[in-house]
Amino acid sequence: MNNEELKALVRTIPDYPKPGIMFRDVTTLISHGDGFRATINNMAEPFFERGINAVVGIEARGFILGGAIADKLGVGFVPVRKKGKLPFETISQTYELEYGTDELEIHKDAIDAGEKILIVDDLIATGGTLEAASKLVKELGGDILGAAFIVDLPDIGGSQKCEQLGIPCHALMAFEGD
Amino acid sequence: MNNEELKALVRTIPDYPKPGIMFRDVTTLISHGDGFRATINNMAEPFFERGINAVVGIEARGFILGGAIADKLGVGFVPVRKKGKLPFETISQTYELEYGTDELEIHKDAIDAGEKILIVDDLIATGGTLEAASKLVKELGGDILGAAFIVDLPDIGGSQKCEQLGIPCHALMAFEGD
Repeated sequence: MNNEELKALVRTIPDYPKPGIMFRDVTTLISHGDGFRATINNMAEPFFERGINAVVGIEARGFILGGAIADKLGVGFVPVRKKGKLPFETISQTYELEYGTDELEIHKDAIDAGEKILIVDDLIATGGTLEAASKLVKELGGDILGAAFIVDLPDIGGSQKCEQLGIPCHALMAFEGD
Repeated sequence: MNNEELKALVRTIPDYPKPGIMFRDVTTLISHGDGFRATINNMAEPFFERGINAVVGIEARGFILGGAIADKLGVGFVPVRKKGKLPFETISQTYELEYGTDELEIHKDAIDAGEKILIVDDLIATGGTLEAASKLVKELGGDILGAAFIVDLPDIGGSQKCEQLGIPCHALMAFEGD
């Protein structure tokens, strides 16, 4: 399936989680057998033969995609989680939400210095989560070769934000004009 | 890698999340390239050629494993999430924790009646989470062919609980005598 066909499998839920937001629900794409296989393949494709050492996936939907992409690339998977969810020693990054802040953590020993990292999440919106995750990876000495998403929301930053961060981003589709 | 070698990659954290608990941390196994690949392969292996239609993964570590196993089986992935995390119409199940209760949800339209389902999580302890997830799948008409885990904790129920539930369970390793 091509990315246009995959886009047709994403469900849009108006006014969720609040009025005015068009929520892009990827669960309908992920639960579709052919759609999921093509999603994983198309997300991983630019990163074959790049010498990736590990995939970093962002909780929670980034886990579904990142685990499958890590397996496809034949590398390990490293979780970036919400505060308080990882059992060993962690480092953390706080980032801004529309109202208030949130905090992401990674295990201190999850990445070795110099390892080539691919970051995976389902969607890039303002890029705040990606920025926090990339700081965690860099603090451990990881070399971020890129980031892969299903959905790009360019109207609120999206993959344009990646340029500011110096991270090559790859998204399968964009939703614009919401 | 065989399951004994995979077991050596699991990190045990004593007294986490509270005194007396030996926490089995699978992140060290999952972040190991060869270990992760063997984990996914060994978890999926009994379910090749069984006509599985979808993998149901339980939030959050079940997402990492379930996504990769779904991709390996060539089927879609359906998330079972904590209350309030799924954007569309859901059904829910409450289950008991040591203190209090928790609630799991699944999208109402995530599974079609008669579909053959494999449930995936990282660990089976008392089996309460598996029981709640299996009720959700059955309520949607799904036919549970089995459940796959990395770790079985037989001392507190573990895969023995599966027999009571009538679900064939497959775990790569057991930790006993804690």
